[in-house]
Amino acid sequence: MDTATAATKPAYAELARRQLQIYRFNHLSSMVSWDRAAMMPPKGNEARAAAQAELDAHIHHLQTDPRQKALLDAAQGESLDDFERANLREIRREWRLANALPAALVEAQTMASARSEHAWRTQRKANDWKGFLPNLREVIRLAREEAKCHADATGLGRYDAMMDRYEPGMTSAELDRIFGDLKTWLPSLVAKAREQQRSTPVIEPAGPFPPAKQREVSLAVVKLLGFDFEAGRLDESAHPFNGGVPEDIRMTTRYGEAGCIDSLMSTIHETGHASYEQNLPRDWLGQPIGRARSYGIHESQSLSFEMQLARSRAFAGLLAPMLAAAYGAQAAFEPENLYRLFTRVKADNRIRVAADECTYPLHVILRYEIERPLVEGEIECEDIPALWDEKMQSMLGLDTRGDFNNGCMQDVHWSEGLVGYFPTYTLGAMYAAQWFRTLRAQRPDLESRVASGDLGPVREWMRANVWSQGRRWETPEFARRASGEPLNPAYFRAHLESRYLNAPA
Amino acid sequence: MDTATAATKPAYAELARRQLQIYRFNHLSSMVSWDRAAMMPPKGNEARAAAQAELDAHIHHLQTDPRQKALLDAAQGESLDDFERANLREIRREWRLANALPAALVEAQTMASARSEHAWRTQRKANDWKGFLPNLREVIRLAREEAKCHADATGLGRYDAMMDRYEPGMTSAELDRIFGDLKTWLPSLVAKAREQQRSTPVIEPAGPFPPAKQREVSLAVVKLLGFDFEAGRLDESAHPFNGGVPEDIRMTTRYGEAGCIDSLMSTIHETGHASYEQNLPRDWLGQPIGRARSYGIHESQSLSFEMQLARSRAFAGLLAPMLAAAYGAQAAFEPENLYRLFTRVKADNRIRVAADECTYPLHVILRYEIERPLVEGEIECEDIPALWDEKMQSMLGLDTRGDFNNGCMQDVHWSEGLVGYFPTYTLGAMYAAQWFRTLRAQRPDLESRVASGDLGPVREWMRANVWSQGRRWETPEFARRASGEPLNPAYFRAHLESRYLNAPA
Repeated sequence: MDTATAATKPAYAELARRQLQIYRFNHLSSMVSWDRAAMMPPKGNEARAAAQAELDAHIHHLQTDPRQKALLDAAQGESLDDFERANLREIRREWRLANALPAALVEAQTMASARSEHAWRTQRKANDWKGFLPNLREVIRLAREEAKCHADATGLGRYDAMMDRYEPGMTSAELDRIFGDLKTWLPSLVAKAREQQRSTPVIEPAGPFPPAKQREVSLAVVKLLGFDFEAGRLDESAHPFNGGVPEDIRMTTRYGEAGCIDSLMSTIHETGHASYEQNLPRDWLGQPIGRARSYGIHESQSLSFEMQLARSRAFAGLLAPMLAAAYGAQAAFEPENLYRLFTRVKADNRIRVAADECTYPLHVILRYEIERPLVEGEIECEDIPALWDEKMQSMLGLDTRGDFNNGCMQDVHWSEGLVGYFPTYTLGAMYAAQWFRTLRAQRPDLESRVASGDLGPVREWMRANVWSQGRRWETPEFARRASGEPLNPAYFRAHLESRYLNAPA
Repeated sequence: MDTATAATKPAYAELARRQLQIYRFNHLSSMVSWDRAAMMPPKGNEARAAAQAELDAHIHHLQTDPRQKALLDAAQGESLDDFERANLREIRREWRLANALPAALVEAQTMASARSEHAWRTQRKANDWKGFLPNLREVIRLAREEAKCHADATGLGRYDAMMDRYEPGMTSAELDRIFGDLKTWLPSLVAKAREQQRSTPVIEPAGPFPPAKQREVSLAVVKLLGFDFEAGRLDESAHPFNGGVPEDIRMTTRYGEAGCIDSLMSTIHETGHASYEQNLPRDWLGQPIGRARSYGIHESQSLSFEMQLARSRAFAGLLAPMLAAAYGAQAAFEPENLYRLFTRVKADNRIRVAADECTYPLHVILRYEIERPLVEGEIECEDIPALWDEKMQSMLGLDTRGDFNNGCMQDVHWSEGLVGYFPTYTLGAMYAAQWFRTLRAQRPDLESRVASGDLGPVREWMRANVWSQGRRWETPEFARRASGEPLNPAYFRAHLESRYLNAPA
């Protein structure tokens, strides 16, 4: 903030100063969280938890400092340029989110979520729905209270207000339209693709896949994807995640011994998230306008890298020699076989996180159709298993009755009271398809460039249209500037039809 | 802090609560500092520096919150037990140290130290005393101001007040006595030892020493020394240091290609520091009473591990097969040759950090005899080279004239305005000798236990007498409880004479 700004726009300048301060404390929070997952020895946990809680409390204290209310009102009347006005909009949003919930509710949620999530880890494995139900009831009761608070603060419906935290501007009315359309064609596409793939056998790679070799391949692929190792790291943790700060990204992955493809695809997925963060606009870092647009747009980056780019024929051709060099030449690593592996529609798809590209959206729709009425009080927790089984049968043709472990207890989200998040996965897949349709139109040489190992066109397009934009525009305008129109699910359908129905035998 | 304490000793309870809060923020500060040195990619530096500065400012704000003044006065009149009274003494000390300096002085020091230290890195290599002098003058001018502030706050002399920050209770009057005595016998001991060693040739180990092998040996030795890897890590950084928190120690080391002994000894040295921190009293962590007694006592741990334990015949016998397994069997790794390597009095000892056990104290005395009059205004920066050369000649028999790089510009300390620290190195060596003399008297089987690979007796004694004591007692009483008397340099002399003059040929 320069002196001139401070003099002519004192309220805005003071708000921006406070945002920068919060940004810096969040930097510390990110780093010690990463350390806890990737580096910390077990006996450090208790002291770390206490230190992080102290820091979280301090950040919350800064975020909710009541002096910001008057500053927000005063800044509204100051003479701001377009960027500052957009930043003020996002500061106001951050302020609203930080202040929407009474402290007692937040505390009750923290306690109930921790208890429920902890019990869920055991109860899920034991297939113990009855044992899980009381905990779930409590976190959903609190999620409903939370939804009411957010609804009151935004004027939105309860579910919409919950979803708005992750995907600002998206509504259940729009989702109903989008998901309603998907349901009319996706199940039959899945069936047709499966039928078609029966005549194209696929060879599984044969191990061993030593973790040290997997690490080598992952580092080489992440480098090929353009991740800047001068501004980030790739390490290992029990649950892969994307941590750190835009200036210093900390990706993690894990290397199982069983296969060499899933972990690599998961690393490529995280590299998409990481590339977004690593290339957010440098000049705006520290301000909300400099952050990622939304969770759906974030997922559009991981899925652009994983689904649009990496699971393509051209990319399979790049990976083939790398895999053969690491694990020994074998028929499984022939480019065409790799491509078949990358695009296989699985027979049993009951687990969302292991689902393939085609069936994944059906998982999301199923959850959306349960969590929306659940948080709005139209159904109760007791109703979940029957609804789950019925939708699993009708959308995926699977019988999940009595199998809570691989059914309605499979996700961590609800066990923690996390509602409104699921739709962003499929919105991300749709945006990714829309970006690549635009990119292909602008760069007809895309496939040959990728096949030659030059991913520059992908990165250049993402940098110009997504990464550099931060939160400069609200989502529909942002999408229009990137691709000529707001979200249009037709491109996702075209992508799946092209990849799964018209593939040469 | 339990509820009863809060009710009956409200001021003390509130002070303790604040100390715990500061402890937790310091935890975060330690971890991100370690990360910066051991993990952070280069482009993360700017954002990290800003985040750390924000955290430092917050910690300083907590430490200097003026409400503590009244709490300290009120707590003095509360009915405290012995532990609480000792903790209050240390809280008062922390308060005094945090508040002794005006903010403008601290700011000027931060700027001047950073500038001077940065320039020193180049000027030292260029042997550029003239270029260094203006920077040195400025940091010493500020150190004198600082000394005046601490003297005013403590009633001590200026140098004593500076040293008191590191070694509470130690005075230059006592140091003059201790160092004066050392000077009467140490130079001749060095000469005699060197003469004696001329007839006992020593074989240098032959490389290569691949870093991966050195890492393996280091990890095994650190484990043998009893470091708890469930509560800490050993990583690598450009400058080895001991970081983290007592609950989660982060040691670092570095592996040069040139030799395999120096880096190992440095890691053993750090393991001594680390063991102290890792075994500080768990019940008092978070309070000043739970911290290490002083810098001299801290050094007594690193030197107990390195000088008293590791450079012994018994320990050389333990290392011999480990080194042979890692780098191939060779005569250099025979136990007796290793012991000679560990106890060699070097011919050219002009660099303090590379000096051997016998000459190291002469380096310290030389620096003490210059920095004391310097900070008290009795000499000026211009006088340093002549004094340095004269003392180097008389104490070590070395001609350093004109060689500023390996002379008075060799240490980072003065370049940053750090005065009063040097004596703690030699006080540590003396305490270490005193501890081991007591330990040997109590455990006549010590040498055979160590030779058999059982370091339990060393750790048990340190745990009972040093590690578990925190700051429960002031230093003389602490030493008396551990060894029957306060600091007695006679044991250091006996140790050197026994090791260097009576060694069997």
